[in-house]
Amino acid sequence: MVDIAARVWNHKWKIDPIVRSLIDTDFYKLLMCQSVYRNRPDARVTFSLINRTSDIKLAELIDEGELREQLDHIRSLSLSRGESTWMRGNTFYGKRQMFRPDFMDWFETLRLPPYHLEKRHGQYELTFEGSWPEVMLWEIPALAVLMELRSRKVLEAMGRFELQVLYARAMTKLWKKVERLRDVPGLKIADFGTRRRHSFLWQDWCVQAMQEGLGDAFTGTSNCLIAMHREVEAIGTNAHELPMVYSALAKSEDELREAPYRVLADWHEEHDGNLRVILPDTYGTKGFLDRAPDWLAGWTGIRIDSGDPAEGAETAIAWWKARGEDPTRKLVIFSDGLDVEKIVELQARFAGRVRVSFGWGTLLTNDFRGLVANDALRPFSLVCKAVEADGNPTVKLSDNPMKAMGPGLEVERYKRIFGVGQQTAREVLV
Amino acid sequence: MVDIAARVWNHKWKIDPIVRSLIDTDFYKLLMCQSVYRNRPDARVTFSLINRTSDIKLAELIDEGELREQLDHIRSLSLSRGESTWMRGNTFYGKRQMFRPDFMDWFETLRLPPYHLEKRHGQYELTFEGSWPEVMLWEIPALAVLMELRSRKVLEAMGRFELQVLYARAMTKLWKKVERLRDVPGLKIADFGTRRRHSFLWQDWCVQAMQEGLGDAFTGTSNCLIAMHREVEAIGTNAHELPMVYSALAKSEDELREAPYRVLADWHEEHDGNLRVILPDTYGTKGFLDRAPDWLAGWTGIRIDSGDPAEGAETAIAWWKARGEDPTRKLVIFSDGLDVEKIVELQARFAGRVRVSFGWGTLLTNDFRGLVANDALRPFSLVCKAVEADGNPTVKLSDNPMKAMGPGLEVERYKRIFGVGQQTAREVLV
Repeated sequence: MVDIAARVWNHKWKIDPIVRSLIDTDFYKLLMCQSVYRNRPDARVTFSLINRTSDIKLAELIDEGELREQLDHIRSLSLSRGESTWMRGNTFYGKRQMFRPDFMDWFETLRLPPYHLEKRHGQYELTFEGSWPEVMLWEIPALAVLMELRSRKVLEAMGRFELQVLYARAMTKLWKKVERLRDVPGLKIADFGTRRRHSFLWQDWCVQAMQEGLGDAFTGTSNCLIAMHREVEAIGTNAHELPMVYSALAKSEDELREAPYRVLADWHEEHDGNLRVILPDTYGTKGFLDRAPDWLAGWTGIRIDSGDPAEGAETAIAWWKARGEDPTRKLVIFSDGLDVEKIVELQARFAGRVRVSFGWGTLLTNDFRGLVANDALRPFSLVCKAVEADGNPTVKLSDNPMKAMGPGLEVERYKRIFGVGQQTAREVLV
Repeated sequence: MVDIAARVWNHKWKIDPIVRSLIDTDFYKLLMCQSVYRNRPDARVTFSLINRTSDIKLAELIDEGELREQLDHIRSLSLSRGESTWMRGNTFYGKRQMFRPDFMDWFETLRLPPYHLEKRHGQYELTFEGSWPEVMLWEIPALAVLMELRSRKVLEAMGRFELQVLYARAMTKLWKKVERLRDVPGLKIADFGTRRRHSFLWQDWCVQAMQEGLGDAFTGTSNCLIAMHREVEAIGTNAHELPMVYSALAKSEDELREAPYRVLADWHEEHDGNLRVILPDTYGTKGFLDRAPDWLAGWTGIRIDSGDPAEGAETAIAWWKARGEDPTRKLVIFSDGLDVEKIVELQARFAGRVRVSFGWGTLLTNDFRGLVANDALRPFSLVCKAVEADGNPTVKLSDNPMKAMGPGLEVERYKRIFGVGQQTAREVLV
């Protein structure tokens, strides 16, 4: 039986929207947005798209008209009643009313601000300017739209069965990973793959496969819409954006040096338990931990997002010990460029020494490597970052200089102020 | 949008029928049925199920009640108007009105005769007795039902995603074969996999994958229902059943010796062109060809269905040459236990020397080897054969003694009469 109404309805769409909800975004974006809305509501920021894989010419692959249609569609979105109910009524990390009523009132009326788009040197210059709590919400949908338009472009020329077999292969590939992870004792792993997913439907499939395949070892997804639909935990804490913008807003060198701790002090007021997770690498992990106030050592965990992950975890463990904390009660979240073998290796090395957890991103939701001609679906490193705040450029140093950002002189100034010396470069796959 | 009506309708089925049409069968069954209906309408035969893979205990795997329900459902089927129109109106092998009006009138009123089922030693004894043109139509649906009930049993315990990944793997596996065959110049290949398919829907998928993947190199399917739905050629000629029953009906040794040729003489009257294909191995290919009348050398081709296929083709080529025929104008159809590597090898060896064609069966429509635990979906060798005609046992010698059938004394008598000496045994996978 053909459902005629459904078919006619489907044909009414002018486009096939990639992002269909304001909560088709990472949970930590909403947490950070609430923090920013409370603490820095008047900051003016610019976010900008940066394709770190420059040989993938997005402006040649993706039609500008289609990109504009998708971005315009996102600007038409507002929080639905059900989404608002989920945010207001749900328990996140064991806590009710995670989102304050004043924030929800604001969020319910929000529409995303305008974007600025032009082509340059085969890439898109896509920027968003305006008040921080509004602009910051562009990051994830903008990335998801570009990633999926690129997927669609590559798939355009494929036949019906070729497509079916492509997804069959991708499913087979992912399931093999799931089966490998199933055998890892004590594993705790979440989906962090929204921003660089192959497509929304594919991420949704990946989450369901993890649910069925891993059971309790699968702790949830960073994607709020999928968490709501699939009734799993929404996962995430905070990101580099906070220290980067706080630092750019600093009025003096002393204020700058204190900015990363100021971020966490604001966070400390609002959150406890598993939400108290330090992301220490924005201006070098070592210096950050050395200078950290003691109350930070009382936090629940550390997220390792650049540099050699094992080294990062050892640094964290040594730091906790030095501060008189018991590392076995602490949480280490690995979230940088993970794939199965690395996960297995890190779990084997650190299980028992700390509480280990994984945020698995691109190679969960976008591993189509080797599945089409010319590897045209290989993942690539697209980011959308705060590049300016109140007229000052932002800077990120990271533990991997390949992930550093900002004007050269500013980078040097930050390195001096934060005492960052020689760093080891590591290839950035995603 | 959920189609409520479709969902309610689906829930009304008491069972999920495996065979839903009388033409969900091999095309050559219908061709042979028409021949039998014309030439031997009064012969009484017994068909019997034989599982040559005795370590797969079908009666322990498959519930008897479910099997009866499926067989009873088949007995409730009759030719639909659209099916009749397709058979009457279609062009088969370039010929209109392949099926005579008198045969169609009879077929339109046909319902399949009763079956007899009991369990013995972990296997089902399933037999069909009655008039030959009716009973013979049980063979393919009976096999398809048992194959698919076995598949269902193995799949019963699997989760939703495990199932999806299983089919993803099977699709990936088949598509790899299709991609391999795509590179073979001059290939002509058809689906012969109805009787031992994994399931109806899977066979239907395989046919569509071959259509899209191979284009004109895919010449059609033996399955009439799928040929009708997918608008591809229905493919097939004749089978061992004809010489086996004709031989069992022979009243003297001379008549017996002539029986295999008598079959083809009846066939000769009715068909020409690509339907004139000799199946020479029932009582040994060599003796059959040596004693064959000259008019048979004028036939279009030979189908190789047992023994070493390259050897069989060489025998055919030598025979045509000896009879003054040009082998390059003759057709050799390989149809025994084929898989991709064998197909590639045979095509390379015989292309240009004869017209080569392949009938690909079980390893097209049922290659789930290695995809589930304990290889529980591996294909196995189930057949349903005429074992008796007018009270006499049937005999098949084949070019492979592992495929021989019949009571020992009868086999010896046939070997003597047909001058069959030492034979080489070859493992029967499917």
